[in-house]
Amino acid sequence: MRVLGIDPGLTRCGMGVVDGDVGRPLTLVDVNVLRTSSSLPVAERLVTIEKGVDAWLDEHRPDAVAVERVFARSDVSTVMGTAQASGIAMVCAARRGLPLALHTPSEVKAAVSGNGRADKAQVGAMVTRILRLDAMPRPADASDALALAITHIWRGGAQARIDAALAAAGRRIR
Amino acid sequence: MRVLGIDPGLTRCGMGVVDGDVGRPLTLVDVNVLRTSSSLPVAERLVTIEKGVDAWLDEHRPDAVAVERVFARSDVSTVMGTAQASGIAMVCAARRGLPLALHTPSEVKAAVSGNGRADKAQVGAMVTRILRLDAMPRPADASDALALAITHIWRGGAQARIDAALAAAGRRIR
Repeated sequence: MRVLGIDPGLTRCGMGVVDGDVGRPLTLVDVNVLRTSSSLPVAERLVTIEKGVDAWLDEHRPDAVAVERVFARSDVSTVMGTAQASGIAMVCAARRGLPLALHTPSEVKAAVSGNGRADKAQVGAMVTRILRLDAMPRPADASDALALAITHIWRGGAQARIDAALAAAGRRIR
Repeated sequence: MRVLGIDPGLTRCGMGVVDGDVGRPLTLVDVNVLRTSSSLPVAERLVTIEKGVDAWLDEHRPDAVAVERVFARSDVSTVMGTAQASGIAMVCAARRGLPLALHTPSEVKAAVSGNGRADKAQVGAMVTRILRLDAMPRPADASDALALAITHIWRGGAQARIDAALAAAGRRIR
């Protein structure tokens, strides 16, 4: 399966595409960081992010999209922009009917490094190793987006089975 | 001028359209509250809001859009959804190149009631009076959306002149 991981942000929005399946080697397809200038109005910055995400959905045709879950208790100075950028990314996926999952930063850290409190350097080092890259993807937003995609693939198998079982039981999954 | 005011929210998103100019009687064009079920995934709810806002932009062709400015220090349980809904509304306006303004709740309360700390009932009563309605628009999200549109029209004249002067001076307005 191919997954687009998105680390949402207004100033830097990381996007990473990974191919693979549980139990097999994963492959980096593409990674990029969308940047928008803080001197522009927020609405214009959000439109730039929408266009960037849409362009990657067109180009890479992922089977699923994984977006970092944003919490209200995050850094107050950037949390509103991050929430808005995540909303745009979610809408881009949902409009196309793509499966969408939100993973928390702790879930991502735990999935790639085995430690839910790993720091950026550890996550970056593990992403580099898992994808067999020559160098750590930079900036951290790029590594984080790839880590989201990796997490989604590795959690995907189990989660898809749980979802299917719950759906069969007639419950709506959030 | 015709203004679409949007009081963003995931569960209830108020939309109010008002016609008028500074110093003239204002007219209610239409008012509605978009509702999305909390049992649905957030991404689906955001897509519903996007469709609703787009439908009203098509139907009412406003000259400008006014969205309530959301703060990170707002109610933590709903602030992320509110931020995401506001981002969607902003993108809908910006995609069409419509002038977009963000007004804070205090600015709106002060504009319609003369008191930046007015309560919901006071704002609703003033909206009813200003638009010469028979009854207060309900729920409060409907009144708040109309209050945003009224605020925008009343502040519009002065703000447009300030923006034009600053733009002429080569400064970028956020």
